[in-house]
Amino acid sequence: MPASLLQHPFMSASALAECNAEAMVQAMLAFELGLAEVQEARGAVPEGASRRMRETLEAHAFDPQAIAAGIASGGNAAIPFVKQARAALPDDLKRFFHQGATSQDVVDSALMVVLAPRLTALDALLVRCRAAAIALMEAHAGTVMVGRTLMQQALPITFGVKVAHWAIGLEQARRRLAGCELPVQFGGAVGVHSGWDGQGLDFMDALGERLGLSTPVLPWHTDRQPIHALGTALDAVAGAAEKLALDVALLTQTELGEVAEPSAPGMGESSSMPHKRNPVRCALIRGATRQVHGHATVLLNAAAQPLERGLGEWHAEWAPLLDSALLLEGALEQAAVLLEGLEVHPETMRRNLAATGGGIMAEPVARRLAPLLGQEAAKRVSAEAAETARRQGIAYAAALEAHPEVQGRLTAETLAEVTEPSLYIGSSRAQVRRAIAWLEGE
Amino acid sequence: MPASLLQHPFMSASALAECNAEAMVQAMLAFELGLAEVQEARGAVPEGASRRMRETLEAHAFDPQAIAAGIASGGNAAIPFVKQARAALPDDLKRFFHQGATSQDVVDSALMVVLAPRLTALDALLVRCRAAAIALMEAHAGTVMVGRTLMQQALPITFGVKVAHWAIGLEQARRRLAGCELPVQFGGAVGVHSGWDGQGLDFMDALGERLGLSTPVLPWHTDRQPIHALGTALDAVAGAAEKLALDVALLTQTELGEVAEPSAPGMGESSSMPHKRNPVRCALIRGATRQVHGHATVLLNAAAQPLERGLGEWHAEWAPLLDSALLLEGALEQAAVLLEGLEVHPETMRRNLAATGGGIMAEPVARRLAPLLGQEAAKRVSAEAAETARRQGIAYAAALEAHPEVQGRLTAETLAEVTEPSLYIGSSRAQVRRAIAWLEGE
Amino acid sequence: MPASLLQHPFMSASALAECNAEAMVQAMLAFELGLAEVQEARGAVPEGASRRMRETLEAHAFDPQAIAAGIASGGNAAIPFVKQARAALPDDLKRFFHQGATSQDVVDSALMVVLAPRLTALDALLVRCRAAAIALMEAHAGTVMVGRTLMQQALPITFGVKVAHWAIGLEQARRRLAGCELPVQFGGAVGVHSGWDGQGLDFMDALGERLGLSTPVLPWHTDRQPIHALGTALDAVAGAAEKLALDVALLTQTELGEVAEPSAPGMGESSSMPHKRNPVRCALIRGATRQVHGHATVLLNAAAQPLERGLGEWHAEWAPLLDSALLLEGALEQAAVLLEGLEVHPETMRRNLAATGGGIMAEPVARRLAPLLGQEAAKRVSAEAAETARRQGIAYAAALEAHPEVQGRLTAETLAEVTEPSLYIGSSRAQVRRAIAWLEGE
Amino acid sequence: MPASLLQHPFMSASALAECNAEAMVQAMLAFELGLAEVQEARGAVPEGASRRMRETLEAHAFDPQAIAAGIASGGNAAIPFVKQARAALPDDLKRFFHQGATSQDVVDSALMVVLAPRLTALDALLVRCRAAAIALMEAHAGTVMVGRTLMQQALPITFGVKVAHWAIGLEQARRRLAGCELPVQFGGAVGVHSGWDGQGLDFMDALGERLGLSTPVLPWHTDRQPIHALGTALDAVAGAAEKLALDVALLTQTELGEVAEPSAPGMGESSSMPHKRNPVRCALIRGATRQVHGHATVLLNAAAQPLERGLGEWHAEWAPLLDSALLLEGALEQAAVLLEGLEVHPETMRRNLAATGGGIMAEPVARRLAPLLGQEAAKRVSAEAAETARRQGIAYAAALEAHPEVQGRLTAETLAEVTEPSLYIGSSRAQVRRAIAWLEGE
Repeated sequence: MPASLLQHPFMSASALAECNAEAMVQAMLAFELGLAEVQEARGAVPEGASRRMRETLEAHAFDPQAIAAGIASGGNAAIPFVKQARAALPDDLKRFFHQGATSQDVVDSALMVVLAPRLTALDALLVRCRAAAIALMEAHAGTVMVGRTLMQQALPITFGVKVAHWAIGLEQARRRLAGCELPVQFGGAVGVHSGWDGQGLDFMDALGERLGLSTPVLPWHTDRQPIHALGTALDAVAGAAEKLALDVALLTQTELGEVAEPSAPGMGESSSMPHKRNPVRCALIRGATRQVHGHATVLLNAAAQPLERGLGEWHAEWAPLLDSALLLEGALEQAAVLLEGLEVHPETMRRNLAATGGGIMAEPVARRLAPLLGQEAAKRVSAEAAETARRQGIAYAAALEAHPEVQGRLTAETLAEVTEPSLYIGSSRAQVRRAIAWLEGE
Repeated sequence: MPASLLQHPFMSASALAECNAEAMVQAMLAFELGLAEVQEARGAVPEGASRRMRETLEAHAFDPQAIAAGIASGGNAAIPFVKQARAALPDDLKRFFHQGATSQDVVDSALMVVLAPRLTALDALLVRCRAAAIALMEAHAGTVMVGRTLMQQALPITFGVKVAHWAIGLEQARRRLAGCELPVQFGGAVGVHSGWDGQGLDFMDALGERLGLSTPVLPWHTDRQPIHALGTALDAVAGAAEKLALDVALLTQTELGEVAEPSAPGMGESSSMPHKRNPVRCALIRGATRQVHGHATVLLNAAAQPLERGLGEWHAEWAPLLDSALLLEGALEQAAVLLEGLEVHPETMRRNLAATGGGIMAEPVARRLAPLLGQEAAKRVSAEAAETARRQGIAYAAALEAHPEVQGRLTAETLAEVTEPSLYIGSSRAQVRRAIAWLEGE
Repeated sequence: MPASLLQHPFMSASALAECNAEAMVQAMLAFELGLAEVQEARGAVPEGASRRMRETLEAHAFDPQAIAAGIASGGNAAIPFVKQARAALPDDLKRFFHQGATSQDVVDSALMVVLAPRLTALDALLVRCRAAAIALMEAHAGTVMVGRTLMQQALPITFGVKVAHWAIGLEQARRRLAGCELPVQFGGAVGVHSGWDGQGLDFMDALGERLGLSTPVLPWHTDRQPIHALGTALDAVAGAAEKLALDVALLTQTELGEVAEPSAPGMGESSSMPHKRNPVRCALIRGATRQVHGHATVLLNAAAQPLERGLGEWHAEWAPLLDSALLLEGALEQAAVLLEGLEVHPETMRRNLAATGGGIMAEPVARRLAPLLGQEAAKRVSAEAAETARRQGIAYAAALEAHPEVQGRLTAETLAEVTEPSLYIGSSRAQVRRAIAWLEGE
Repeated sequence: MPASLLQHPFMSASALAECNAEAMVQAMLAFELGLAEVQEARGAVPEGASRRMRETLEAHAFDPQAIAAGIASGGNAAIPFVKQARAALPDDLKRFFHQGATSQDVVDSALMVVLAPRLTALDALLVRCRAAAIALMEAHAGTVMVGRTLMQQALPITFGVKVAHWAIGLEQARRRLAGCELPVQFGGAVGVHSGWDGQGLDFMDALGERLGLSTPVLPWHTDRQPIHALGTALDAVAGAAEKLALDVALLTQTELGEVAEPSAPGMGESSSMPHKRNPVRCALIRGATRQVHGHATVLLNAAAQPLERGLGEWHAEWAPLLDSALLLEGALEQAAVLLEGLEVHPETMRRNLAATGGGIMAEPVARRLAPLLGQEAAKRVSAEAAETARRQGIAYAAALEAHPEVQGRLTAETLAEVTEPSLYIGSSRAQVRRAIAWLEGE
């Protein structure tokens, strides 16, 4: 597949490099060796056998291509892997390898082992995003800008509070993801540790601990709640990153120009149009996260699996789950750089606040005039002056001062004050404080 | 819409009756009255005003149809509702009604108010399912049946352990849903309590408490993580219920016949085919839960909303969210009845265990023969005897006893023992015990 | 359900009114009466029986509520409907009613009968959109505006060509939807006309013709390709409408202001912010179409249905299919009004073309200067002048004329020409002509 | 990514080998060279230039890894590719390379070029499936089996008619896919051939022809109807293949055993359970097609793209589109083998027909007895005899003959006839004939 040109650009390059076929093979090996060790410790494997297995197999050069080719007949990677491994073992060890396990035990557990460092990496990226966001919030707690609803200018906010909302979204998603379990899988052919009685559960628990995975209540071959929880938690992070990218892209529009992606040589440049600087990081984030939504949809529809083993439902989980993690890691790498180096243009924010000639301040002005002119007249006058300001390109305060019904009734100072967006930012500062306390709180 | 014939059959009838347009109007009213009270307590509304509002508006007959018609111009139900309410108030109270609020504050909070009893009902149904499942697990801890992987007979399990897996799936989903927050929404036009400074956050917190909703860190007009968490948690329950329905439907197949839906007059009968009893409850559950997946997909794709207010993304959440809850409540009503009245046929389970003539026991038999015949011969003999048993319709033990290479080397007693599925159920009993402890644990 | 406040606002009100439960009952009745007539004409029902049935049942007051209540036990509306109808018939006719039919025959066919006028209405709305778009294309074939890629200003286009792209998207989707079939369903209990031999197919064909539906190759109880084709074609129209709404919303942003939704009393107004006019129609379109995507997802995942009848997969289709049509009709009603009354602001488009001080014309300018100054110098000079123009707020041509390296080498006239966006619109006019020819072509 | 172990097993190996990064590079090159040739033929490139470009670049060793690495800054593969190509060209040709094109022109067209052989391969596989299905239909036109609705035994059908339904589903989807267009993309920076006037459309048309792609009405940078149509048509094929796999998996269940996947060495075997033969091909088909649904969901949600270029929506299309094709090709390779080598067990089908002791024939029997016993008694007797037959394990006809109310009233011959499922297969034979005519018809 031309994956390197069409799919990989959205993924984390370093994560991709770590997650090669060899990594999956090593994860399957970790499962099998861990199982043998756990069983040896409980008398189910002769003493010393697990060590000999480890020595032989860690030195063995597995052939991932042959494993890949072998999937066709068994339907998953564990079957050809186990064959290769057994063939490499001395005869007396063969029967103690993969003892009591089924291929789904191997694949599910190995996937969790492969995913574990990815979740760590995602968490670290989210922590980086959080730190960068807090810095922006502090720097811009008083940077006034226009708030926009349904993409129309509405009333003033601060840039600090906007960043606070991004940060809270990302942090909520981070905490949710951090709460997800990566459980070990071990149940044998039909999930009841056939031939092992109660000891099977001991093996499972001990193996989970050894692999650094969590311990489920029971084997979960067709109870896919952990996969659903994980897949949708990854998607939640995707949604939070996508919100950031959407806002940055909108604020970067030529006509708004309130923020810009961090500049870097060649980044976002167009060969034909020298004036252009594309929000490429936003495009990559949005490109990645939309694919995550698609993968999540597969998992939603695969939660119900028949009887003791899925017939395609299980198989359909692998790529969506891992691809989600890799796409998300790519998206968060972009998001971290974006937040760490975001160019903020407070002067343009101020310019845009004036775009309606004061229209966005008409509401507080009307409130202030009401006691003097009555509610109706106050509304009319505040709107008329805004219109004048916009047409003549003068300040709203000046237009008000010149209005025949206002003239002399309010000082220039008062007028300057009531038309000043930075004095009408509501709880913006309090929100930033509260957000930082919460972000740093746990 | 012919909803009552095409959509409602999957929903809970009682929930539908509770969730009429009037309920939404009352929830919006609860928001506004709660807000006035909270503001009055903090000096932002004249004393006594909130009580007078309540008296007037609780006596007022709102016109839901007019509200519905008014949505077209403003885009949501709050705008025409506020107009109706204001019109009903004496002039001196008008300006204190909906003070500092925006329409999204009203709609988001009202939706949460409407959803709260639904989540309570869902939890109660899941608790009913859990109790019924525990009873089945206890009754069938030793009921042997065949485990099936990729829908092929594999090895014995017990029916108790199968139910345990259903129960764990449902309970995991229940706990996840129980952990979801229903946050109040209150931020004003652009989410920063314009004109109110820090007091805005006090209003928000107090209002949340008054409405029995949780308190968010900040207003969440375009931070839709709470919606994502809720929508996907509902979907997780759907997945667990769907698994139950899929298994019951498969086990109910005429040729398997191991369980049957609880019988009830007319239930699942076919007018033309007297022998038929359709698993109608399973069909209704699967019909409902698949629709929930579609609704969840809308929410996944609406998590990123632009700037300070969604432009369609927000609007797209309402029906999918509420419909998910109503569909799920319908599905769980069926699931509870299913689990409480499930007909279990242990004798058919035993019959099916013999369907392969002992083939499913060939693996333990081979293990037992290996020390006597060598590994290879043991495998061959165990398979040959299974084939003989199936062809001649005799017991696997008898076929083994008659096999020339076995004859006389193992007693009939021993042979009966190693071919007995009920002696090869692994950790089934331990799993049931562990599951019950976990289910009852929290 | 508070559907009237949360779901219906996105749907066509007139379509909703037509599509009540009674309509579904009448459609089921049309199926049964048509079947009896077709069978009578082929000797399978006594002469005169179908006429007597019609007289009795058309006069009969069916009870949709009782039918709805009866769905619980059979799983679909046909079973209680048939019971009601049979009970109303004289004894000698009972056995000829619903003869050879199964409940899925009734429900599938009735859904198609209910959908037929909806597809007609959708087509009419799309034709209205097309006409309105052509008028806009003709009026604005020469209206220059800036083209934006990744939401950044790029190079000039015309508003006419932008509308052409909307129109082509909608028309492609219209033709695709028009090519969809609404097939009759008739196959009996297991789809093979049990008891009827080859005559069953004759019944099916004749019934399709009588109901104005198309005739499938065979009954399609679990061959859901027609549903998949229809559902995804509806979604294609949704996508085209969504593109229109997205563009209009973006161009309506306060800072762009190039178009505005048609104004109407109260439409898009905000009670608290007098300067605001929200693109409510765009929000409603986007709200509706995103829900259609979710419904389509259900259909994608329900295309594979087991053996001779779906077990939930079929049931899950009903609401998503019909809701898609109703949501889409609502969206297209908005889209038609939008296109018919769209306010276009050519002067603002021109203003925005100058926002970069000529930056968007730097590429053609550099091309023109290259023969005089060499490629490198030409690029540098064109960019420097653009920067000057933007900073000093003067025309790009003037800045170029004043540039020391240009001075005197090109006439003011030439400079005016190469910096004139309206002379750099490429194939815009040709595209509009070609689009109109194609739109009117079929 | 451990793609080779987790994702590739579901894809066509040969297609994967063809679709490497090099193939994408060659497709981009084909676009650029074709463009230069088309422009040269129209006087926009100096004579001989395109030939010299071709000679230079076809001999040039592009570095796909460097291209992949270069995507990060521009957001797509065309930008670094064009840089590499330009660097390899003599100076006088550089400006005629990629002349008038934008990166989306290159990527969209190259994707279509890469997809074209995949669609050809998919069509060939579907034709293979069709031929195999017709052979099965002819061989089994009279092979009686039980039809199952809601997975319960219902009434007899034939295996031929079941295959006919599979074949019609696949063929409908094939025709739909065959009707999809793979359009060339060429519009330049903002889609209006800036600097080229009407000639731009000529270039586009000629280039489409040269690349073997279809010609769109206009450039379609943000009119994604062709992608929507293609993606959902691929999904329709997926649905049809999934239906086949679902049915085969259900019929392969140990207790049903009516069909089996073609046996092959090692195929579907379990290392631990010698009696087991897993329907691995069905699992692979279902695993693949479910992922296709997820990819299609991404495309549904990306149909609306902003203004003149998507900001992530476009980028999100690449992998889902190509992966869908590769997954589907993998699924159809399995489907073709499945249909060509399916093991059919008519004798087991007959055995299952008797599983209800005649219950499935109770309806025709009751009809036959009604004139003799009255309707009510006939129903009762037919059911009682079925129960007797099932309990005593005797033939239904024998049980009827022995029933006191039947004894002597019908000959053994008549009883054998009315209880014979093969005489109650309705239009099964006619359906097979009609299906074959339609399948071969186009």
